[in-house]
Amino acid sequence: MTPPFADPETGAAVKAADRAHVFHSWSAQGLIDPLPVAGAEGAYFWDYDGNRYLDFTSGLVFTNIGYQHPVVVAAIQEQAAKLVTFAPAFALEARSEAARLIAERTPGDLDKIFFTNGGAEAVENAVRLARLHTGRPKVLSAYRSYHGATSAAINLTGDPRRWPSDSGSAGVVHFWAPFLYRSPFHSETEEQERDRALQHLEDTIVFEGPQTVAAIVLETVPGTAGIMVPPPGYLAGVREICDRYGIVFVLDEVMAGFGRTGSWFAAERFDVIPDLLTFAKGVNSGYVPLGGVAISEEIAATFATRPYPGGLTYSGHPLACAAAVATIRVMEDEGVVEHAAALGEKVIGPGVRELAERHPSVGEVRGLGAFWAVELVRDRETREPLVPYNAAGEANAPMAAFAAACKKSGLWPFVNMNRTHVVPACNITEAEAKEGLALLDAALAVADEHTR
Amino acid sequence: MTPPFADPETGAAVKAADRAHVFHSWSAQGLIDPLPVAGAEGAYFWDYDGNRYLDFTSGLVFTNIGYQHPVVVAAIQEQAAKLVTFAPAFALEARSEAARLIAERTPGDLDKIFFTNGGAEAVENAVRLARLHTGRPKVLSAYRSYHGATSAAINLTGDPRRWPSDSGSAGVVHFWAPFLYRSPFHSETEEQERDRALQHLEDTIVFEGPQTVAAIVLETVPGTAGIMVPPPGYLAGVREICDRYGIVFVLDEVMAGFGRTGSWFAAERFDVIPDLLTFAKGVNSGYVPLGGVAISEEIAATFATRPYPGGLTYSGHPLACAAAVATIRVMEDEGVVEHAAALGEKVIGPGVRELAERHPSVGEVRGLGAFWAVELVRDRETREPLVPYNAAGEANAPMAAFAAACKKSGLWPFVNMNRTHVVPACNITEAEAKEGLALLDAALAVADEHTR
Repeated sequence: MTPPFADPETGAAVKAADRAHVFHSWSAQGLIDPLPVAGAEGAYFWDYDGNRYLDFTSGLVFTNIGYQHPVVVAAIQEQAAKLVTFAPAFALEARSEAARLIAERTPGDLDKIFFTNGGAEAVENAVRLARLHTGRPKVLSAYRSYHGATSAAINLTGDPRRWPSDSGSAGVVHFWAPFLYRSPFHSETEEQERDRALQHLEDTIVFEGPQTVAAIVLETVPGTAGIMVPPPGYLAGVREICDRYGIVFVLDEVMAGFGRTGSWFAAERFDVIPDLLTFAKGVNSGYVPLGGVAISEEIAATFATRPYPGGLTYSGHPLACAAAVATIRVMEDEGVVEHAAALGEKVIGPGVRELAERHPSVGEVRGLGAFWAVELVRDRETREPLVPYNAAGEANAPMAAFAAACKKSGLWPFVNMNRTHVVPACNITEAEAKEGLALLDAALAVADEHTR
Repeated sequence: MTPPFADPETGAAVKAADRAHVFHSWSAQGLIDPLPVAGAEGAYFWDYDGNRYLDFTSGLVFTNIGYQHPVVVAAIQEQAAKLVTFAPAFALEARSEAARLIAERTPGDLDKIFFTNGGAEAVENAVRLARLHTGRPKVLSAYRSYHGATSAAINLTGDPRRWPSDSGSAGVVHFWAPFLYRSPFHSETEEQERDRALQHLEDTIVFEGPQTVAAIVLETVPGTAGIMVPPPGYLAGVREICDRYGIVFVLDEVMAGFGRTGSWFAAERFDVIPDLLTFAKGVNSGYVPLGGVAISEEIAATFATRPYPGGLTYSGHPLACAAAVATIRVMEDEGVVEHAAALGEKVIGPGVRELAERHPSVGEVRGLGAFWAVELVRDRETREPLVPYNAAGEANAPMAAFAAACKKSGLWPFVNMNRTHVVPACNITEAEAKEGLALLDAALAVADEHTR
C-alpha cells in the first residue's frame, strides 16, 4: 500500500466507527473531524483519498526516526515472536539491553532506568522519587511548559491544559523561565535574561522556604509551549541553585530527548547533569508506548534497602524495550543524531530565518536540531501575537487559516497558539526539509494577511 | 526455544545488566533478585537454567489468553508492518475497530472509548471526566482496593501502596466496602453485610455532603486487595445511591474485566451498569500496553461541544489497538470467557474448596471465573491472618516460605499479604489448572506449619 492510493469506502468506514466509538484527546467530540489515515512511511503519511502529506509534526513530536523504519519494524516482529509481554519483576533480555543502552547515553551517573508507558508517568515517578528522596513536599515548575496529563503531571504543567484539572493543592509552585522575546523580566540581552531568571527562581525558592522544596522540574528546551532555547548558563545556574539548597533537579526530556535537539539528550547541549531525567517519545519513536526516568546513583541509593513505592504492570514491557533497543541502534548506525544537528545548522535554521526576513507575520524564529518554533505576530514592533493566548473559535481564525493552507498544499503543520513548529522526523532528508520549508513559505502568505 | 532449555551464561548476562541498570517497581533495589526469564508459552514460562513454571499469576493478572498466542502475535506483526504508530488525533482502522469491539461488549450505553496506555491513566481520566461532568470535587473509593500508581490513582487506592504517596489533599474519601469474612460492620450474613455496607456508604456521602461528591470508584470485584466478591445486590445498591445523589458511578475493571470473572465484564455478573468503566490488562492480554475508559452517552455528551481537557501521545496506539482486536476475536472464537466461567464452577472453585477442607491454614476461599483468593490464617477460629497486615521481613516469613515452596515445585504463585490468588490465564486447560492446584496443595503444608 503506497501512495497515491485511494480507497474512500474504507476511509469512510474507518471514520464512521471512529465517530461512533472513539473519544479523542483534548477535543470537543462533536466538533472534530479526524482525518482517516491509511499509511505512512519516512516523513510522509497518506489518507484514503489519494492525498499525501509531508509530516512536519513527527506525530506529536515522537517519530524521530520517521514512520515504519524497516529495522525497527522487524525488531518488533521478532520480539513479538519471542516474548511479546512479561511482568515487571523479572530480568528480561530486551529490558536489560534497553536500560543499558539508555543509561550509556544519559548524562553523568544517571545509570538506573525506571520504565513507564509514557511521559506523564515518567514525570509522576520523578516527582515521587524527588519527594521521597528529600522528604520535602513542594515541586517548582515553569509557566510555558507541558509535563503530561495525569494528576501530578498536569498540575506541574504551565499551559492552559492544566486549568480544568488544577487541584490547586498538589504542592506545585510555578515560576517564570527565561524567554527573551517575551521577557518576564524586561531584559534586553540574553545575559540579562539569564541572570534575572536565575534571581527570580532563587527568590521564589527563598520565599517558599528551601526546606520545603523537593524538586525543580524543567523541560531542558520547552516543547509545545514554544521551544524557548534557554540562554547559555541558565541551566547551569539552576543546577547550582539546586545544589545550594539540596533540591532535586529534574530535566524533562520527553520531547527534547533522543536526538531531537541534535544530541542524544538536550542536557548535553547545555553542559548540565540533572538528578533525574524523564524520557518517552523518541526513545523508540513511539513505535510501542514507552517512557521512563533515568535516576542518579545518589537517588537510586535511597531505594537500595527501602522499597520504592511506585510501579506499573507494563514497566519495562519487552516489546516496547525491544523497539527502543532497535531504535537506538538505528540512530547510532545511521547517524540520526548528527543528522538532526546538521539539519538545524544548515537547513532548518537558515530556512526559517529566511522566512522571517520575508514574512511580516514572523516575529521570531528559534530552535536547534530538528526542533524549531516560528512565532507569528500581528505586528513585529509590538510583538502582539497573531492570535491571543489560548484563543479558540473566531479569535483563532488566522492560525486556523494558516494551518488549512499548509494542509491544502500537502504539508501537515504543528500548530500551537500563535506558533508553528518545524519538528519533522530527525532523519528527514535535506530535500524533504526544503520542500516543507517552501510549502511553509507559501502558507505564511495567509498569516501575513492578518498583520497590521 | 522450548523448554527444557538451559543457557545459564545468557541468563547471567541478562541479570547482570538488569542489576546494573533496571530500577524495579515496588522494590528495594538492593534486596531483590529478579529471575531471568527466557521464554513463555500458554500458561508456562521458563528461565535460563532449565526450570519451567506453571504461571498461576498471569503475569500481574493480565495475560488472560496466556503467553504467545500465535493469532495475536501474528496480528501484532501484521500491524507493525502496516502502521506501527500514529498520533491520536486521526481516525485509524485498528483504533476504530478496537473501540467498536470494546463498546459492543461493555454494559449499557458505555459506547465511547477513551484509550490510555494502562489502568492508572484510565482511572486518572475517569476521575477527571467525573469531576468535570458533575462540577464536584470529591471522589469516594474503598479501603482494600488498588487503582494504580499515578497521583490521583494512588490516592484513590486503599492499600499500603498509597501511604508513601498520599498527598492527603486530593479530595479522596475512603469508605469500607463489604467483606463478610472480615466484616467492617460485624455482620453475620451476606444480606446483613450488603445492607450495612450500603448504609455506611450513604451515611458517608450524607456527612461529606452529596453536592461535593463527583464519583464513587469501585473495583467490581477487588483484585490484588483480596478478590472480595460483593454480596448480591450491593453494586445495584451503590448504583441506586449514585442515581439518588447525582454521583458518577465508576467501576474499575482493569483486573476484573475481559473474561477474568467468566463474563466480558464483571459488571454483567452483578447486573449493574456504571457510568464509566476503566479497563487495561485483559483488553489485549498486555501484549502491547493499552488501557482505557468506556464512557456513557450522558457523560460523553458533556464533551460534545466543550473540549475534554485530557489526552496522551499514545491514546489509541495502533499496535496496541490491533492487539486488542485480535485478542477479543480470539477470546470470542475460542470461547475463552465461557471457559473461564466453567473453570471457576467446575475446577478452580471446587479445587480450592477442597484445599480449604484439608488445610488448617486456609481460612477462606472465594472468587469466580479464573479469579480466586485463598486466605491464609494462623487460626481458623480467630481468623488471625497468617502474617500481619503489610508485613515485611521476618514478620512475613511464613508467606515467604509458602511462596518458596510453590516455586520450588514449579508453580509460580500470586502472593499478597496473607493470601495466595489463583489467577491463571483464563484459557488454561482443566489439566493444567488441576496440576497447579495439586502443587498448591503440597505447598500449603508449609503454611499449615505456622498455624496455632
